[in-house]
Amino acid sequence: MNNSKQTRDLLLRSTQLDVDSIVMELRALRQASLESRNRHDRPPRLPSRRIMASVAEGLSAAMFPNRLGSSELADEGIDHYVGHILNMTLRELMVQIQNELHYNSGLEMLSDEDRAQSIAITQSFAKRLPQIRLLLESDIKAAYEGDPAARNVDEVLVCYPGIMAIMHYRLAHVLHGLGVPLIARMISEIAHSVTGIEIHPGAQIGGSFFIDHGTGVVIGETAIIGQNVRLYQAVTLGAKRFPVDENGALVKGNLRHPIVEDDVVIYAGATILGRITIGRGSTVGGNVWLTRSVPPGSNISQAQMRQEVYENGAGI
Amino acid sequence: MNNSKQTRDLLLRSTQLDVDSIVMELRALRQASLESRNRHDRPPRLPSRRIMASVAEGLSAAMFPNRLGSSELADEGIDHYVGHILNMTLRELMVQIQNELHYNSGLEMLSDEDRAQSIAITQSFAKRLPQIRLLLESDIKAAYEGDPAARNVDEVLVCYPGIMAIMHYRLAHVLHGLGVPLIARMISEIAHSVTGIEIHPGAQIGGSFFIDHGTGVVIGETAIIGQNVRLYQAVTLGAKRFPVDENGALVKGNLRHPIVEDDVVIYAGATILGRITIGRGSTVGGNVWLTRSVPPGSNISQAQMRQEVYENGAGI
Amino acid sequence: MNNSKQTRDLLLRSTQLDVDSIVMELRALRQASLESRNRHDRPPRLPSRRIMASVAEGLSAAMFPNRLGSSELADEGIDHYVGHILNMTLRELMVQIQNELHYNSGLEMLSDEDRAQSIAITQSFAKRLPQIRLLLESDIKAAYEGDPAARNVDEVLVCYPGIMAIMHYRLAHVLHGLGVPLIARMISEIAHSVTGIEIHPGAQIGGSFFIDHGTGVVIGETAIIGQNVRLYQAVTLGAKRFPVDENGALVKGNLRHPIVEDDVVIYAGATILGRITIGRGSTVGGNVWLTRSVPPGSNISQAQMRQEVYENGAGI
Amino acid sequence: MNNSKQTRDLLLRSTQLDVDSIVMELRALRQASLESRNRHDRPPRLPSRRIMASVAEGLSAAMFPNRLGSSELADEGIDHYVGHILNMTLRELMVQIQNELHYNSGLEMLSDEDRAQSIAITQSFAKRLPQIRLLLESDIKAAYEGDPAARNVDEVLVCYPGIMAIMHYRLAHVLHGLGVPLIARMISEIAHSVTGIEIHPGAQIGGSFFIDHGTGVVIGETAIIGQNVRLYQAVTLGAKRFPVDENGALVKGNLRHPIVEDDVVIYAGATILGRITIGRGSTVGGNVWLTRSVPPGSNISQAQMRQEVYENGAGI
Amino acid sequence: MNNSKQTRDLLLRSTQLDVDSIVMELRALRQASLESRNRHDRPPRLPSRRIMASVAEGLSAAMFPNRLGSSELADEGIDHYVGHILNMTLRELMVQIQNELHYNSGLEMLSDEDRAQSIAITQSFAKRLPQIRLLLESDIKAAYEGDPAARNVDEVLVCYPGIMAIMHYRLAHVLHGLGVPLIARMISEIAHSVTGIEIHPGAQIGGSFFIDHGTGVVIGETAIIGQNVRLYQAVTLGAKRFPVDENGALVKGNLRHPIVEDDVVIYAGATILGRITIGRGSTVGGNVWLTRSVPPGSNISQAQMRQEVYENGAGI
Amino acid sequence: MNNSKQTRDLLLRSTQLDVDSIVMELRALRQASLESRNRHDRPPRLPSRRIMASVAEGLSAAMFPNRLGSSELADEGIDHYVGHILNMTLRELMVQIQNELHYNSGLEMLSDEDRAQSIAITQSFAKRLPQIRLLLESDIKAAYEGDPAARNVDEVLVCYPGIMAIMHYRLAHVLHGLGVPLIARMISEIAHSVTGIEIHPGAQIGGSFFIDHGTGVVIGETAIIGQNVRLYQAVTLGAKRFPVDENGALVKGNLRHPIVEDDVVIYAGATILGRITIGRGSTVGGNVWLTRSVPPGSNISQAQMRQEVYENGAGI
Repeated sequence: MNNSKQTRDLLLRSTQLDVDSIVMELRALRQASLESRNRHDRPPRLPSRRIMASVAEGLSAAMFPNRLGSSELADEGIDHYVGHILNMTLRELMVQIQNELHYNSGLEMLSDEDRAQSIAITQSFAKRLPQIRLLLESDIKAAYEGDPAARNVDEVLVCYPGIMAIMHYRLAHVLHGLGVPLIARMISEIAHSVTGIEIHPGAQIGGSFFIDHGTGVVIGETAIIGQNVRLYQAVTLGAKRFPVDENGALVKGNLRHPIVEDDVVIYAGATILGRITIGRGSTVGGNVWLTRSVPPGSNISQAQMRQEVYENGAGI
Repeated sequence: MNNSKQTRDLLLRSTQLDVDSIVMELRALRQASLESRNRHDRPPRLPSRRIMASVAEGLSAAMFPNRLGSSELADEGIDHYVGHILNMTLRELMVQIQNELHYNSGLEMLSDEDRAQSIAITQSFAKRLPQIRLLLESDIKAAYEGDPAARNVDEVLVCYPGIMAIMHYRLAHVLHGLGVPLIARMISEIAHSVTGIEIHPGAQIGGSFFIDHGTGVVIGETAIIGQNVRLYQAVTLGAKRFPVDENGALVKGNLRHPIVEDDVVIYAGATILGRITIGRGSTVGGNVWLTRSVPPGSNISQAQMRQEVYENGAGI
Repeated sequence: MNNSKQTRDLLLRSTQLDVDSIVMELRALRQASLESRNRHDRPPRLPSRRIMASVAEGLSAAMFPNRLGSSELADEGIDHYVGHILNMTLRELMVQIQNELHYNSGLEMLSDEDRAQSIAITQSFAKRLPQIRLLLESDIKAAYEGDPAARNVDEVLVCYPGIMAIMHYRLAHVLHGLGVPLIARMISEIAHSVTGIEIHPGAQIGGSFFIDHGTGVVIGETAIIGQNVRLYQAVTLGAKRFPVDENGALVKGNLRHPIVEDDVVIYAGATILGRITIGRGSTVGGNVWLTRSVPPGSNISQAQMRQEVYENGAGI
Repeated sequence: MNNSKQTRDLLLRSTQLDVDSIVMELRALRQASLESRNRHDRPPRLPSRRIMASVAEGLSAAMFPNRLGSSELADEGIDHYVGHILNMTLRELMVQIQNELHYNSGLEMLSDEDRAQSIAITQSFAKRLPQIRLLLESDIKAAYEGDPAARNVDEVLVCYPGIMAIMHYRLAHVLHGLGVPLIARMISEIAHSVTGIEIHPGAQIGGSFFIDHGTGVVIGETAIIGQNVRLYQAVTLGAKRFPVDENGALVKGNLRHPIVEDDVVIYAGATILGRITIGRGSTVGGNVWLTRSVPPGSNISQAQMRQEVYENGAGI
Repeated sequence: MNNSKQTRDLLLRSTQLDVDSIVMELRALRQASLESRNRHDRPPRLPSRRIMASVAEGLSAAMFPNRLGSSELADEGIDHYVGHILNMTLRELMVQIQNELHYNSGLEMLSDEDRAQSIAITQSFAKRLPQIRLLLESDIKAAYEGDPAARNVDEVLVCYPGIMAIMHYRLAHVLHGLGVPLIARMISEIAHSVTGIEIHPGAQIGGSFFIDHGTGVVIGETAIIGQNVRLYQAVTLGAKRFPVDENGALVKGNLRHPIVEDDVVIYAGATILGRITIGRGSTVGGNVWLTRSVPPGSNISQAQMRQEVYENGAGI
Repeated sequence: MNNSKQTRDLLLRSTQLDVDSIVMELRALRQASLESRNRHDRPPRLPSRRIMASVAEGLSAAMFPNRLGSSELADEGIDHYVGHILNMTLRELMVQIQNELHYNSGLEMLSDEDRAQSIAITQSFAKRLPQIRLLLESDIKAAYEGDPAARNVDEVLVCYPGIMAIMHYRLAHVLHGLGVPLIARMISEIAHSVTGIEIHPGAQIGGSFFIDHGTGVVIGETAIIGQNVRLYQAVTLGAKRFPVDENGALVKGNLRHPIVEDDVVIYAGATILGRITIGRGSTVGGNVWLTRSVPPGSNISQAQMRQEVYENGAGI
């Protein structure tokens, strides 16, 4: 905030910056916008993305204190560190949960029900942390075993963007299930912005999940992924089309993303759309565009797709 | 900067790190580089990317104080907050504009003309902020209506990377038009690094624009996009080829990116290259590679592209 | 860490958050995990990614003090700035190198050999900095000459994500070669998270290298890239398949990524897999999927690929 | 928090630091202490001194925005700055007021009465700010006119510790009168630690008050000081004796400090004790020890005190 | 570090600031100074005052977590907080102890003996913390009972500078006794700078000690203070004269400060010099200058001192 | 700035905080104040105390890099550190000097003369730094030799408040002499607030100056102190009276403080007032009140002062 003296002198002679009228115009726009949403007297108070980022960091450190927390801790001090970080982080999280519940209620003040609910959600979430760590250990092991460039599991944990994205997803997924989808979405978007991997918190993903490289991966809200699945960069598990109701408005919430069964590998750039099923143990090749279910054990490659096209003739 | 005692002791016995000679080598390289650019006595003083990031954050907070600024403000305090943040941010911006104009001039000192110009640009930019907010409201509405996973407009504003990228683009585009393209580029690169979406500030984009997921989207300098267009991740609106002049140097600045008319939808991974026109209301399917104009109402899919190829025979 | 009074009051009445038992469960998981890795009494002490980020920033500032360091320096002060930043940064780096060597040794205390080795690696690395700067100058020049939207080399240096990714790669590559691959990987992942460009530190890349846009680029560990090569976004230079040994475990470290000779251009979305060679001066078109070597001067496009398929008939 | 590797290695072999048992001993002491105060289940939640320091700084900046706030503001932006800083600071203050009222109540939760009271106190306090500024202007003018070394009023405002102490006192005094003496005391102790001047918030002090140099000044809780009084360093306006009740406990709150009427000057090191009156226009010399009232216009010096002693003979 | 553009432009034309020659002159002075101390090749590496300030803050928070640590903690989280803060703070302290031992040794590298010694000192110190807290509780109680303005013990703990000074003294005194006097001195100087109260860490002070107001209090290295002593501001317990040896150099370390027995009260400004004894239960009045021992139960006032002078006649 | 949700809800229902009207009242007061000073259109732009604190810290670190700068530097890096810190700090200082000159000029914009002057002052000041360090070395040596509790010169430099006060004084004195008294005063007040020692920058003080303990020391603007003088806490070198002109206004700038010749010792609490001379080699005892010159070699004590009184009879 250090402007030069020069600048300031010039501005002193100029009153044309006219911040006041911009402030008034912006106020008018805010009012109009609130009124159009029937919130004119209740500007939204949302959970804070910045605070959720520190919550996610704190939870990661609590789960993996030596490697993602402070590497300076002697072993005897770790439990104090973990306990302290959980105390602070879970309380911060609860306040954000209150914010989301309050926002949803549309009430002027937080109701007692929502207050009690925020405690209950935080408690349920906290209890799930050890289980989340267990799942993440299976993911890390899968990465180590699935990448010839990985030298050890510690490197995977601290370096691989796929692990970071999955860790945030697993935290977000539990919160999504407990009824705070906005906070859950914030957590997954924090990982998205760092890794380029977007996993909707609503997706269901089994253990030993590995995403290599990862930039450009998109996994949709109703996708279901089994155990031991491996994805490469730029894979999309998306919706094929968005049905609209009689008014032309989108139908929200229907099952529209793929089911990927156990032990499937999907190579880079593959696009898989719609509520189809990729059968157990299948391999989907790079850049494949797939909108039909395939049976277990399938081996789908781009060339194969084209061949199929020729065989089907007018099917094109 | 806390090195261990151990380390330090070792280094004390070793003078082989020899920082002085590295400093001298780097100086020689800097001199040579400056001379080759005829700037040997004027090392470049550029606008600061770090400061531009805080400018962009401040402008976002001024436009959406409740949701992107401080959520702790009571309504009666918002105008003071907006006014204060505009005062501080616009002054910071003006200093950066001065830096860019000074840099361009190649003069030893900032000229009075450039100083006056920096004020004029800041004033013009400030006046456009309410209009930018209005456009962004249309973009947020488009996102809400175009994504079945979106629950409300507030979630869209605080969570969607597409909105963040468009907000930065709309700010950068105005600055680009006012004659400070380097600052404009910095703003759009800040969004690029966070979202994976790259929109050149020179592109022209109408209201109600929606980019879903977004990682990998590239929109080129001379692209023109109409009202109510929707893009998905990894869409490229690029140049087909780069003409060179008689010396083999690139011709800079010619119109080389697509025109996308109103109400077009372009699905993930589509690549559209060259100064072609996608007619109003068209749909371009996922992964389509398109280098020819298509009339209004077209529905282009990968399969269709292939079919066309076969029909045209040797056209391949 | 400012929780509301409200929240606190509620928590005081509730002892069900039960952090203690979560702490105990997490401890049991940590113990089990350490034991499964035979490290039960030696929790890993890894290099710190946060510190490596500041090291990378310091090295960039030392190489380009006017543009990436402090733009406020008068020329006469630059050498002091560069010298000071090198002193601080190289010492920090050496401590991290010690951490990696110690980690690898599995010993309880850092051995004298590893201590001496950490000094030797730091010295060797420091000596390479001027050479790295020279290579980066060639990269910047290549970007300026290869992008019609680039107005000058300074804009390229401060704005282009490709340059940031290459700078981190060139630093990481030298460290990789000196025997600290984990630190090297951290540096390249720092750039990956900001740019969406992933270059494995083990790859070998010649001068005048340019990556435009860049999001989604992946360059594998054993890739070799010549002089004056240009890539666009979402290009993959990957492995085709991962051989396994008789136990079904991945064979690590074999040569499995492409060789790209001098003067090659690879357009957006091209996927090039396996230990194949793209001959000097070739052009690979957008979205091409290529798993066979091509001779010098080839011009490969998607259409061509398809035609080739038809001509080869059953080759599909 | 960067301990050396060396240190850590040593500690790893030593488990004798035994933090756990210290933690347990400290807990036992806390419990015993709480029980002896009948607060065993309600550890005190006090206002935060750190936050009160930022509140005091914010209020100073709001009252003198050009000189104690941001000197970078152009005039047109000052009102937004003042308004914003008041909004933020008064809300912070109100939370601290709640903390004090809650603490006093000894209740488990903040009562609705105390909540309403915290708003009322904040409102009353806010309304007094312009009046406080007016008083401070008279103090600054008195300092300028009273010190031959003062060159202008701006120097007095930004440099003189006496002004800083009086500013904090005037804020604290209003809060003391409104029923939050602990917060008031914190504010005056903040100034005490910076200036060495201790003014109890309960003291009553008229306008045009000047303390020069100031280190060691102590002004007691029930002191009353008129208009246009000047003090030098190390002056004490204290209590002569502390009466005790029948149980030997101190009687708290009785009037025990001096009354200093208008236009009095008290030189360095003078000690004035007890509920005596220094009559209007008097001068008290350096190091004088005074425990009896003196009439208006008195001129008391150390020598005079001794003379008086001799004249009174056995009075010694 | 944001200089104005203006400034910079001017400096660019001026090379007369000539930092290089100042750097060289300062280096020559450093060398000369080191040589005169026979340390020319070993510049001193001292403990860090900044780090010791955070150590002292951490230890205070560990002893009084609710009131001097984080007031936001629910009771169930306090032990984790205390344990974590002790782990971090004691490790930082140990590194500073190493620095002092290393400095004293004059050796190039820290010896193994000093390393072991640093652990032993830290352990011994840690064990004393509960006892220090107990003493501080007696001090707080004494302040509450001795000051009619004190409303409760919590106010005393968070507001009274005397308590802050005594807390730092009690920590410093233990460290002084364990053989690290420089670190001990730093801790007491930290309190001195905040409170104006200087207590040498070597002094011996019993429980229930209270210093009111405190600015200007000085307590010397060999002073001994009993139980339940109360001091007011500007009291000096100093040395009367400094004996010199045959070379005229000060004799260091002899017993030269007063002994103050139990239950003594010393009022503001009293100066007590030399190895004299103030007998149990005595009262020393304000501004008294005392260089002779007084028996138990004495009541010394300034007037009395003068009377004594007269009675002794030529004794003056 | 995290207010509790509770607070916010309450405030939302209350519009009685009415910040707007307070803002307006404060504006009216500012306008009135500016007008009364004939500055109504030019609010003062003063040097920043916060920045001057960092300047003073930087200059201390440049003069004593091992002990007051970074103790982590290996010897070979110190010159870079010193050079860098001087470059940054001197530029910051020059901007503050510009601010003071501009403020004094009362002009709307900084004149070219003042700009040139700010450079000249900075240059002259920089050249004096080595000499200041030399003087400080003599001060440190004097402290070591004068205090039996001092163990070595390093302890004196990092622990003794007297040294900190003298260091700030010596920097401030040079700036005072170069024509920027406000900046000089800020520097000395920074030390005053930390040490309780107030030395006016205008005072003249020779080498080997030692202040022990120091709290409460005041040294006036026109005081002159010779070589090798030692002071204890609470010593005042002040003015006896302030002459007024025919209008009753203070005459500013006359010589009104004592001259203390070489080798004088002044014990704690002594008050020496007026333009008198304390002859070479004299000793002034504790608490002495002295307003007459004394010849070289005098030994003044409180008792002596009284005796003198009696001998002079009516002189009392």
